Amino acid sequence: MIERIKVRFLPDNITVETMVGESLLDAALDAGVFIPAACGGSGACGQCKVKVIQGAVNAESTEKILPQERDEGFVLACQTKLVGDVTIEVPKAKVGRKVIPRDEAERMKTMARPMESPIIPELNPMTMTVLMNPPSPKLEDNTSDYERIIRELKVDHGLSPVIAALDVLKVLPGEIREQDWNFTAILKPECLPGIEPYYRLLKVSAGRKVPLRTALAVDIGTTSLWAELINIESGEVLARSSRYNPQISMGDDVISRIVFALKKEGSEKLQQAVVQGLNQIINEILEKSGIPKNSINYMVAAGNTVMTHLFMGLYPRFLRQTPYVPVAQNIEPVPARSLGLDMPEESFACVFPGVASYVGGDIVSGVLANGMWDSDLMTLFIDIGTNGEIVAGNRDMLMTASCSAGPAFEGGGLQHGMRAAPGAIEGVLIDPETFEPMIKTIDAKPAVGICGSGIINIISQMLRIGILNQNAKFAQDLGTDRIRKGTSGFEYVICRAAESGLNEDITLSEVDLDNILRAKAAMFSGYTCLLEKIGLSVEELDRVIIAGAFGSFINLDHAVTIGLLPDIPREKFSFIGNSSLKGARLAVMDRDLMEKSREIARAMMNVELSEDHAYMDNFMAALFLPHTRMQLFPSVKLGASG
Amino acid sequence: MIERIKVRFLPDNITVETMVGESLLDAALDAGVFIPAACGGSGACGQCKVKVIQGAVNAESTEKILPQERDEGFVLACQTKLVGDVTIEVPKAKVGRKVIPRDEAERMKTMARPMESPIIPELNPMTMTVLMNPPSPKLEDNTSDYERIIRELKVDHGLSPVIAALDVLKVLPGEIREQDWNFTAILKPECLPGIEPYYRLLKVSAGRKVPLRTALAVDIGTTSLWAELINIESGEVLARSSRYNPQISMGDDVISRIVFALKKEGSEKLQQAVVQGLNQIINEILEKSGIPKNSINYMVAAGNTVMTHLFMGLYPRFLRQTPYVPVAQNIEPVPARSLGLDMPEESFACVFPGVASYVGGDIVSGVLANGMWDSDLMTLFIDIGTNGEIVAGNRDMLMTASCSAGPAFEGGGLQHGMRAAPGAIEGVLIDPETFEPMIKTIDAKPAVGICGSGIINIISQMLRIGILNQNAKFAQDLGTDRIRKGTSGFEYVICRAAESGLNEDITLSEVDLDNILRAKAAMFSGYTCLLEKIGLSVEELDRVIIAGAFGSFINLDHAVTIGLLPDIPREKFSFIGNSSLKGARLAVMDRDLMEKSREIARAMMNVELSEDHAYMDNFMAALFLPHTRMQLFPSVKLGASG
Repeated sequence: MIERIKVRFLPDNITVETMVGESLLDAALDAGVFIPAACGGSGACGQCKVKVIQGAVNAESTEKILPQERDEGFVLACQTKLVGDVTIEVPKAKVGRKVIPRDEAERMKTMARPMESPIIPELNPMTMTVLMNPPSPKLEDNTSDYERIIRELKVDHGLSPVIAALDVLKVLPGEIREQDWNFTAILKPECLPGIEPYYRLLKVSAGRKVPLRTALAVDIGTTSLWAELINIESGEVLARSSRYNPQISMGDDVISRIVFALKKEGSEKLQQAVVQGLNQIINEILEKSGIPKNSINYMVAAGNTVMTHLFMGLYPRFLRQTPYVPVAQNIEPVPARSLGLDMPEESFACVFPGVASYVGGDIVSGVLANGMWDSDLMTLFIDIGTNGEIVAGNRDMLMTASCSAGPAFEGGGLQHGMRAAPGAIEGVLIDPETFEPMIKTIDAKPAVGICGSGIINIISQMLRIGILNQNAKFAQDLGTDRIRKGTSGFEYVICRAAESGLNEDITLSEVDLDNILRAKAAMFSGYTCLLEKIGLSVEELDRVIIAGAFGSFINLDHAVTIGLLPDIPREKFSFIGNSSLKGARLAVMDRDLMEKSREIARAMMNVELSEDHAYMDNFMAALFLPHTRMQLFPSVKLGASG
Repeated sequence: MIERIKVRFLPDNITVETMVGESLLDAALDAGVFIPAACGGSGACGQCKVKVIQGAVNAESTEKILPQERDEGFVLACQTKLVGDVTIEVPKAKVGRKVIPRDEAERMKTMARPMESPIIPELNPMTMTVLMNPPSPKLEDNTSDYERIIRELKVDHGLSPVIAALDVLKVLPGEIREQDWNFTAILKPECLPGIEPYYRLLKVSAGRKVPLRTALAVDIGTTSLWAELINIESGEVLARSSRYNPQISMGDDVISRIVFALKKEGSEKLQQAVVQGLNQIINEILEKSGIPKNSINYMVAAGNTVMTHLFMGLYPRFLRQTPYVPVAQNIEPVPARSLGLDMPEESFACVFPGVASYVGGDIVSGVLANGMWDSDLMTLFIDIGTNGEIVAGNRDMLMTASCSAGPAFEGGGLQHGMRAAPGAIEGVLIDPETFEPMIKTIDAKPAVGICGSGIINIISQMLRIGILNQNAKFAQDLGTDRIRKGTSGFEYVICRAAESGLNEDITLSEVDLDNILRAKAAMFSGYTCLLEKIGLSVEELDRVIIAGAFGSFINLDHAVTIGLLPDIPREKFSFIGNSSLKGARLAVMDRDLMEKSREIARAMMNVELSEDHAYMDNFMAALFLPHTRMQLFPSVKLGASG
């Protein structure tokens, strides 16, 4: 159980409800209480010094707090964990103006409610283990090793028909005899579309013991690769890791990757790059968890159609040419090693089925995970990735579209953008008088860039307090050196070099802002058009589920303020995080859900927006903060708190 | 229609019925009319000069016949083809004694009646070609290339379900667009045991034209490799070739191959050797026929269990250890290239299922071809290969056994033994007074060795005319230099170096004879024991079908005389030749017959003779010519004509 506690901030007397274990800096950020904090919570700048008036905290000792100060109750907010109700005083000199005065109920509503998948998987993995001890051969019964195993599997385990590839037969005689006909078989129930199920004998090994059996759930994003190692006997997630997709050096977005793929050996280089990235993650995960590699039975990967094509080595050219035709929507599992994956010889890799050139397996996986295919609730599902995808509908109907949003909300294409990784600025609060920022980084590591949620938060606040105008241009008369002319036009300095984990200032420029503006306009136009096609207004939606590689700090008010999300009651929103990875995890645990994903993919009707006039009109109208038609965003009050 | 004609030989007034196109030498050999012929029919020695008294012949001109002789009607028997009824005079000086005086009816009975397979294959090959032209994609119908093909195959061709491997998907987009959505698909109907049939898309290529499609039927013998290239659209055999199995350098028989396989990398070397041999044959066949390699769709190979294991790279150790367990009896088709075969990328290789360690796919293939599984006739099927196998039964019951006969009847283990290839001595007639041989080689090429049928013929005659005794030892007092003491004991010179294609005399030694004696004893003991187990006497057999790598000259009287074949009416015998290759050819043409072979293999009950006392007793008793119990061979009259 998560224990909820209350933190009261003086002198403004703002109380925020939060959880045991949270940091005091996070609580302040949540409350909208400005405490200078330039280093992102790493403890380096020492600016976030506050005094504990009442209650106990768990404060790290730091040289930034003198012994005398410590005795008086001073702590660094970023180095202090909450353990119970507490009252905090922010020193007068440091008190900034609250950005948005609001009561507690209002504040909680602005946080995107985190959502786990409502789909409960059976533990029904893609491989199964059978402990065997058939009668050993005699002259009266000298059928072959293979046929003996087949017979035993049928008679004693009800598993039939069974077939085996030559590679398995090659090691059979030794393994089955090593421990006197005690051995363990790994079988793969084969579920090819339209074909009666049968079993494939994948491996036979000496001894009758259930080995640790794991599989990998993988999200192959255009920007990031994510992987989880899962114990397929228990469902436990043993380890998790991520890194940039190494293909980034061959293009930021799917279009530039396709262009690269068409060059000489481009496709091979891209395939090798993503596999190399996955291999690094796999080895990192194994090292981190101490799990042996030979435990890995398979990989289930979800990626958009371009990523899936490049991963599999399929020719991507026609994905970007009208009428946008993939090579294949359903691809059969392949031996993992045939792709170059550093996995056991008998292991295999499956990819999620796709719907169209720009609605791929990651979205099908996301829909599998978010459960809208199994719900009566009219749902809008928005995946704010490099290639913004939208799905609307419920169990009766699913429609989908994509809008090439670009990677801005994943930090791509921005001078200091980055994905949600340690050191990424995800929480930002700007003092409306001094225009100084208070920043919070992921894992409280020295700031090295800004991720999607940080970008949304900072732009919204800059817009509200007048640093930015609705055209996303900086005010130049505010008398702060945080705004300056940089090499790419005007820019705002979020974190100075000295306080950062870089050797340079972390900034957000007008060129960056332009990218973000186009990304949010594409998303807005995408879901607006799709809902129009269905004949639904945003008000008729029961819920909006947001997916994407944000940090955990997605603030709905901010996302609505910049016009990214529709202006509807905040309680309708939930944030599912990396739903592509979550869907892959479900399929790893339950092969029936992999089958279900084929049904889902077939059921999803794709709408091609790229050549749609309404989409272009909506896009142009959305190139404004929040939108040229302010009546679409009634809750957004610009300048009200500025 | 074969036109039968009569040839009358003077002065003995023996008439033989034969066919237009036969050589006069063959007719004399058939008739038992001795004409000196030392060079095997190559025209080199000029000894077989005879005179045409009446009728016309087609004689090659040769310098061995002077113009004046030609005008008088002299010809070389070996260089003369028969075109009609003819009377021939053998010059007095050359007339030898007839070996066995007999009338025409008797003579015909001694020839093993050649038998073709009674099984008529459907033209139903393992792959099928579909010419396609699906509607090209549009924005309203932009399903993937692969799913478009699947849809078209289902809707327009009734072929469903269809699945494709990744390699096919990789080339799909280019091929289908190259000729504006006109393309050709090659599908493999998959018939895995117990699994509903489905179709595997093997290849897609631009253009709508039925290419020449071929497949290979292969017999992997311990001694010889045979292959045929077959047009699978028409069933025509386009080319045929054979060569020694290069594994011979690693052991003559299956046991020594297994021993070699257990050495370090032995198995790999054996696998590579047989594949290399097959690749040579494949390329030879393609060159000979001018057929392009890319026409080859698949290979169907039949071999004994050891050969099949070694071909597939399976561990053969337990094949030779009691209780003699194969790794697998049924092996799924594998990509041809995965075995190292020089065949197209999409092509595959199938092997015939086996029954037991010493009754393999070659025998199943032979049974498929000889049709005994589909006949009411009680049949004994004897394959006189390196590893002698026997099958007895009919459609109601099939029992099988093997007896390690060794390669003597394939020419193996004999000083001048060879397989039935050009230059092999296959027909022999020995003058009972001079002990000079008249020989006939395959393709009338200079003699380079003696093959199985030649061995049987010569031993039988030597036994009858007293050159050999029943212990297979030479008489040493005959006053002929044809019998002499050689390096391996006493030997008979079949062909002198000067008249041969070698630089040495071609001989048969007592050591050779000992090998042959043991081989024939093993065969005799094998079928005797198997029939005893069934409770059948040889007299109750409706027919005996003989298979093996003999030449075409197998003489039943001779084979009975040496005790190899049972002494029953000669009209019950037929000779099917290489039935393993014939069965493979059937399976190449008709995939249902490949399925049928699985049923046949399952139905064949194997009897292990190797540890059977009766087998050993029978073997010992058969180490005599024809047998220690002469009453088993009532028709054999030794010395009657000697």
